[in-house]
Amino acid sequence: MNVTIKKIADELQIAVSTVSKALRDSYEISAETKQKVLECAKRHDYTPNPYASSLKRRITANIAVVLPEVADSFFSAAINGIESVAYEKKYHVVVYLTHDRKDREHSILHDLRSGRVDGVLMSVADGPGGSEHINDLANKGVPLVFFDRIIEDVRAAKVVTDDYDSGFKATEHLIKKGSTRLSFLSISKSLTILDLRLRGFLKAHEVYGLPVNKEMIVHCDDNDEANNFERVKKLLELKDRPNGIVGSVEKVTTLAYSVCRDLKLKIPEDVRILGFAHLQIAALLDPPLTTVTQPAFEMGKAAATILFKTLEKKIDSRSERLVLQSELIERASTR
Amino acid sequence: MNVTIKKIADELQIAVSTVSKALRDSYEISAETKQKVLECAKRHDYTPNPYASSLKRRITANIAVVLPEVADSFFSAAINGIESVAYEKKYHVVVYLTHDRKDREHSILHDLRSGRVDGVLMSVADGPGGSEHINDLANKGVPLVFFDRIIEDVRAAKVVTDDYDSGFKATEHLIKKGSTRLSFLSISKSLTILDLRLRGFLKAHEVYGLPVNKEMIVHCDDNDEANNFERVKKLLELKDRPNGIVGSVEKVTTLAYSVCRDLKLKIPEDVRILGFAHLQIAALLDPPLTTVTQPAFEMGKAAATILFKTLEKKIDSRSERLVLQSELIERASTR
Repeated sequence: MNVTIKKIADELQIAVSTVSKALRDSYEISAETKQKVLECAKRHDYTPNPYASSLKRRITANIAVVLPEVADSFFSAAINGIESVAYEKKYHVVVYLTHDRKDREHSILHDLRSGRVDGVLMSVADGPGGSEHINDLANKGVPLVFFDRIIEDVRAAKVVTDDYDSGFKATEHLIKKGSTRLSFLSISKSLTILDLRLRGFLKAHEVYGLPVNKEMIVHCDDNDEANNFERVKKLLELKDRPNGIVGSVEKVTTLAYSVCRDLKLKIPEDVRILGFAHLQIAALLDPPLTTVTQPAFEMGKAAATILFKTLEKKIDSRSERLVLQSELIERASTR
Repeated sequence: MNVTIKKIADELQIAVSTVSKALRDSYEISAETKQKVLECAKRHDYTPNPYASSLKRRITANIAVVLPEVADSFFSAAINGIESVAYEKKYHVVVYLTHDRKDREHSILHDLRSGRVDGVLMSVADGPGGSEHINDLANKGVPLVFFDRIIEDVRAAKVVTDDYDSGFKATEHLIKKGSTRLSFLSISKSLTILDLRLRGFLKAHEVYGLPVNKEMIVHCDDNDEANNFERVKKLLELKDRPNGIVGSVEKVTTLAYSVCRDLKLKIPEDVRILGFAHLQIAALLDPPLTTVTQPAFEMGKAAATILFKTLEKKIDSRSERLVLQSELIERASTR
């Protein structure tokens, strides 16, 4: 279906080797010729398949990072990791935010299909909406690497952390400190990483013979932050309120702090709090926050490294899976 | 110098009105024709001047935001403000980070000149390197709006806050609370906004008859965070160490907290700390942080509104200047 390099060469009346070099962005070829070749390739909807093609594909010198938000410090650190690799390759990194809305993710990926970037790094938005739009992108030959928030059944490289083990260890930590009524705060029922953390939470209950109170598994997935505040407040006003909380992401963890302040509950005396967080200032909170910290920078770096390996060496990385370790850092909030 | 619409029409053998409509992205024109027209326009380096042209310019449906970093919560909130406007207009927002490096800013703006986006919102990188690359972008007819970090002598719309007044009020607040030896922590000698905040700091000394100790104006502009830590540590180990600190941006403010913790200095008893910050969790710090908080979301929203007004209504907004008010929120760190 695609025109071949020969066709482009014929149409522009230049040598096949010139087309090939132009598409490789060789220094031997003038900017003007490169422009013509790229336009001709684009006109014919010619998308070199990075897995099958023998061309070094470097057309836009841009890669996209598509992620939910940057207010969570995990993501800002991951971007830094991605840029540390891209910068060396003289690529620009363009960041797109989905704000955890699938319709925005759809629209962004649709735009990226048309060749705005050479490759995509992605941490998926929460919510229903399937993975068709992601498969569409991959089918257009745009290399894709997931990091952190993945969709298991899309065939693409994946860089994740040990979320199940981390969920288990976080819960075990609270149990060993003496907490008996444990709550799990989430932001989503559908995100794989949060499901894994929750399963680790449940497994720890099983191993240590503690009952699970389903009322204490709370999803703060309302767009209105005031409603999420009320949900956590209701939880901490229960007669048998939790004496240990696992915050599965940064914003529900700081939310739990705010509610404790509002209710004049003492951390850790009344309730121990531990959160999955990458906050630089976790140690400056009152009290300092015990965290499960993902190697955000390293995850971004690893994901970008796989993407560039795919772009440059034309390997098929789609079945690669890299699992990095998170670290539990104990501070005063769980003493 | 530019080819006219007529020339494009002649070359493609289509009607002038068709070219005009295609450039306006009219629904009457097929995707194929639009593509041909855009390629032809591009081939001839045809850039409609948004100020002079009568064309509604909507070619990429993308706008760029170029800023130093997203780890500072001011910027992540400003992006949200920008997106609140862009989303309504069915535009995508692409974010580029300069990491306060002028060479990266150069490279990004160079890329944006070639028509990747319809307009640019920008908060400039620190450092020497002039404004030629920014003027180059503007001269290519790409509409540009500055927010927060501006370059005064580039002719473009500007959205800022009352930095001089805020610097004055922050300092006055510390003086009225009883601080007598005041320090100003900065990250740059050249950024306009920090210079204004510093001038407000100096003015308050003049008004209240306090001497300025130049040793206490500290620039944490080292790329190595450990060196910045040492600079602030040295400051707080002075025999006559400051008993009041104005942190002119978020990261030097939290740095001051970390150093106080390290030196076992009590906030506010030993030293009061106030910072320009947009931290959602300022109230959760130990102690809760008094902040000068800029209306980040509103600034982003205002800047994007001006940009779209320029794109859609073809007005010349280059001399617009909007000054929003920051708010001093008193908490325990300055009691």
